[in-house]
Amino acid sequence: MISTATPTKPKQKKAIEMRICEGKKSMFQVFVLPIPKFAIILCLTLIFPPPAASLKSAVNVWPKPRLVSWPRPLAKFLSANFTIDSSYHQHLTPAINRYLGLVRTEHYHPLITPFVIVSASAPPLQTLSINVIDLAVPLQHVANETYSLSISEAGETAYLTAETAWGAMRGLETFSQLVWGNPPAVPVGLYIWDAPLFAHRGIMLDTSRNYYRVEDILRTIEAMSANKLNVFHWHITDSHSFPLMVPSEPELAAKGSYGPDMIYSPSDVAKIVQFGMEHGVRVLPEIDSPGHTGSWAEAYPEIVACANMFWLPGSNGADQLAAEPGTGHLNPLNQKTYEVLKNVIRDASNMFTETFYHGGADEIIPGCWKADPTIRSFLSNGGTLSQLLEKFINSTLPYIISLNRTVVYWEDVLLNDVVKVDSSFLPREHTILQTWNNGSNNTKKIVEAGYRTIVSSSEFYYLDCGHRDFLGNDSRYDPQTTGQDSKEGASWCDPFKTWQTIYNYDITFGLSEDEAKLVIGGEVALWSEQADPTVLDGRLWPRTSAMAETLWSGNRNEAGRKRSGEATDRLNEWRYRMVSRGVKAEPIQPLWCIRNPGMCNAVQSF
Amino acid sequence: MISTATPTKPKQKKAIEMRICEGKKSMFQVFVLPIPKFAIILCLTLIFPPPAASLKSAVNVWPKPRLVSWPRPLAKFLSANFTIDSSYHQHLTPAINRYLGLVRTEHYHPLITPFVIVSASAPPLQTLSINVIDLAVPLQHVANETYSLSISEAGETAYLTAETAWGAMRGLETFSQLVWGNPPAVPVGLYIWDAPLFAHRGIMLDTSRNYYRVEDILRTIEAMSANKLNVFHWHITDSHSFPLMVPSEPELAAKGSYGPDMIYSPSDVAKIVQFGMEHGVRVLPEIDSPGHTGSWAEAYPEIVACANMFWLPGSNGADQLAAEPGTGHLNPLNQKTYEVLKNVIRDASNMFTETFYHGGADEIIPGCWKADPTIRSFLSNGGTLSQLLEKFINSTLPYIISLNRTVVYWEDVLLNDVVKVDSSFLPREHTILQTWNNGSNNTKKIVEAGYRTIVSSSEFYYLDCGHRDFLGNDSRYDPQTTGQDSKEGASWCDPFKTWQTIYNYDITFGLSEDEAKLVIGGEVALWSEQADPTVLDGRLWPRTSAMAETLWSGNRNEAGRKRSGEATDRLNEWRYRMVSRGVKAEPIQPLWCIRNPGMCNAVQSF
Repeated sequence: MISTATPTKPKQKKAIEMRICEGKKSMFQVFVLPIPKFAIILCLTLIFPPPAASLKSAVNVWPKPRLVSWPRPLAKFLSANFTIDSSYHQHLTPAINRYLGLVRTEHYHPLITPFVIVSASAPPLQTLSINVIDLAVPLQHVANETYSLSISEAGETAYLTAETAWGAMRGLETFSQLVWGNPPAVPVGLYIWDAPLFAHRGIMLDTSRNYYRVEDILRTIEAMSANKLNVFHWHITDSHSFPLMVPSEPELAAKGSYGPDMIYSPSDVAKIVQFGMEHGVRVLPEIDSPGHTGSWAEAYPEIVACANMFWLPGSNGADQLAAEPGTGHLNPLNQKTYEVLKNVIRDASNMFTETFYHGGADEIIPGCWKADPTIRSFLSNGGTLSQLLEKFINSTLPYIISLNRTVVYWEDVLLNDVVKVDSSFLPREHTILQTWNNGSNNTKKIVEAGYRTIVSSSEFYYLDCGHRDFLGNDSRYDPQTTGQDSKEGASWCDPFKTWQTIYNYDITFGLSEDEAKLVIGGEVALWSEQADPTVLDGRLWPRTSAMAETLWSGNRNEAGRKRSGEATDRLNEWRYRMVSRGVKAEPIQPLWCIRNPGMCNAVQSF
Repeated sequence: MISTATPTKPKQKKAIEMRICEGKKSMFQVFVLPIPKFAIILCLTLIFPPPAASLKSAVNVWPKPRLVSWPRPLAKFLSANFTIDSSYHQHLTPAINRYLGLVRTEHYHPLITPFVIVSASAPPLQTLSINVIDLAVPLQHVANETYSLSISEAGETAYLTAETAWGAMRGLETFSQLVWGNPPAVPVGLYIWDAPLFAHRGIMLDTSRNYYRVEDILRTIEAMSANKLNVFHWHITDSHSFPLMVPSEPELAAKGSYGPDMIYSPSDVAKIVQFGMEHGVRVLPEIDSPGHTGSWAEAYPEIVACANMFWLPGSNGADQLAAEPGTGHLNPLNQKTYEVLKNVIRDASNMFTETFYHGGADEIIPGCWKADPTIRSFLSNGGTLSQLLEKFINSTLPYIISLNRTVVYWEDVLLNDVVKVDSSFLPREHTILQTWNNGSNNTKKIVEAGYRTIVSSSEFYYLDCGHRDFLGNDSRYDPQTTGQDSKEGASWCDPFKTWQTIYNYDITFGLSEDEAKLVIGGEVALWSEQADPTVLDGRLWPRTSAMAETLWSGNRNEAGRKRSGEATDRLNEWRYRMVSRGVKAEPIQPLWCIRNPGMCNAVQSF
């Protein structure tokens, strides 16, 4: 069964006459008009009525701005001396310099020739003038990202007004995406007002299972900024490796990393944080604990239960020691655990300026703690696993808060069936819960409990899913007959999340208006069992762009209908622009589909 | 339910003492022995009994050779003046030069420190001496690829003997994979005998839906050679674009390609064919017809039915005009069709030296032909769709055969439910059918009908599957609740084919011994709806390596049991080596799993 989300009339292929007008279809073409221009515009309008999609192709900003007014398809060139004016700001000024270089040199040629009249008589654009209302607002949660952009036909100056430096960066990105061609042109008679629907829009990247170089992280942050995302949630450590050099606990990385060339030094971190600032992207560190800490045992075996054991011993799933290989949970009963962990937390809060700190607290597997004799003794004396977790949270959360941090945990800490804490241990003003299980149901549970939440539903936002299970020697792949319904080797979060899966998801689905206010935003997640730098860009992009638009301006048109049909063409174009900027985003359709808008759509067929 | 294919005892992590011996786990280490070496080997054996997997890690050749004898873990260095001797051969000599550079400069460091004794007292290896029995054998189907390789401890010369130049290339690849470290070392006391189980081992790449640069194709051929694959099946043209410059029909590419920078010129083709020769890889062209020819209509609209129409008009699937967007079938009733097509076939047979020619003949969609008035008239006068296809085959197949070509068609031409030809139109000595539907069932149907077959089961060998459907504006992605069983947006060939899916597939499953002889080999296929150069390597590798080993030496150990457990560790290592050679193969596991062999395996758990 296939039915259209937004029934769009499939366009027949462009008529021959129109293609003559377009010239070589792989070539970019602008109409440089002599006066009298209106006569020629009229002629064009009569002979080649530009379809609506093409009309908008010169305002193909991703994510789509909230409000775009561009009544006539007019554009003009940037002056050869085009510049951007603004007051000095430590982070905005480098961004301005970057964007100035980009708009002067990018020369992006849209895949669909824009039906835009580039006026040679209009004065070229000399200046983009930026006015920031409050340059002192720091980059932090709910920093105002509103901006407006105005480019008149007659004036030599365009105006970008923003509440903060970070909003100005969003406006600069919009401006850069408006510029195309060589010489660079920009639409005129244009007004944009823009602001995000959700304050928290991020990517979670796991750098423990496989290592990513600093350059990979920087490239990712740059691409995030281009998609108006603002939080790089860095899942730095896990059971597999501990790649963060913590100054007061250097042995953790020295022994727990994958090797001396696979460690993030404090100067690496400073570089990444600084780079984030200059791109309006917060760098939110996660030091997952007490689970997911096998790698800590390389330096401190005494504080880690069940480290370096086979993850699934015996013949019964109840013996499981970890959600997946490898094993290791910090031991909440060992005081040394807190000495080490607090050193890590303190150093992390020094290295990362970000006011959110992610403590993890996901996937406590009973079998792991039970493998430790002191814990077994505690349990046999009437203690419970949840009491162990409460002891752990109570020994660390207040310390994190004392460092002026808001703590983010995965939802498990409150919602796990077996090992969880009472909500009294999690002060609502200082705690945010990130949801990943059970779709909108758990989002609702969290906000009903009064907590703010970040949505990372594994059913919609987990970018690693769909590659099936990574376990070796797995006989589920043995059958010689299979089929579309095959479950053999399915991983827990199959299937693959397409850009449309992501684009169509409403993260406040099923919530009341008040409940929805507690949803601060969303993050796609890339866990790295089957990912590393070789495939990073293609796993992230353009699927993450789909979330970026829904969290910025939604996924519905003015009539309230899903706009994924129209978005397909725009995302294709944006994907190619990202590729031209050095991000190896995967293609979502044949180039033929992009050249023939609407022709690759699904329609009601049964 | 998880159970092991080959129950392997999961190894506990290496003991502390052993790790001391290993040194820094990220570092490569060899033991350079002074005499008396036997005492020290004994010591090592007593103190650090090397596990079997590690013992073999210096003979980690992928695909695994048929016979490896290496009784003792000894190695020695290559001389700084190491060279390779052979008689001159137009294609082998360039290969030798390439491999000589590779073994001298690769300096690959295995991820698992090999337990190998590198003897400093043994004379370094000066020469690899190649003896080819018959240098005149051309690169073609069933060219003998057998080789043997012998590297003694005492001698200064190693010996590679092969039946043909192509077998010598296989042996050179094996030799290159045996070399590791800096200075380069190679195992000694080693004898390998090797030959493929199947003669035809390939990759099909679709360069019509999205374009690949010549350099992408060359890199792919080089990686194929490293995996001992020997057929690059080039699905050059389709409905989306016609990127092949055919000298006698230049308009096809001039108008039907994606643009002047996305055309394969005759010199591009010559370069690719030549490159293939120097890598022992045949370049097999496919000009798909009569279906999948929409792009031909840009030059010759009169010979193409239903071109440039919306693929799924109306509300009924019966109106479908193509298997997917876009549309277009050559019209078998128009004589001009054959004029153009024969020009294409003749030019292709001039450009491609390969003696197989792939004619396509898949996915005839009745609705497309029925959209043409002349065909409708033919049908209303009692003609059938199958008669149309028979006319098409009968008007082209004899011509292809007259050019001394063996014709390959997709299975549809014989097995399609609706549009197919009688087997009398397909002479068995000149026709090979490539199977892609219905798993082993269709393989059996084809060989039962007496045809040779190439296996490309979409359930096992289609590398594009698992990314779900690529159609735009698809409301199947709308639901706000989903789950592991979600069918929304599933493409016809979901799910993703993992390396284990591919590795475990037996392409002669269910066949008698005689029937199995008609299975000449297999090909993985990458259709490019959602692939292009940005993601090519990760889509192909290392999953294609999995097929490469099963078709070369099988997927079972000496005891006849599936060896996917042991293969996991070897494939991890080989994947990293491919990456170090510039192929961006995707990771199949966390690096932790590779460093801890067996620890990421599945085991019997319920």
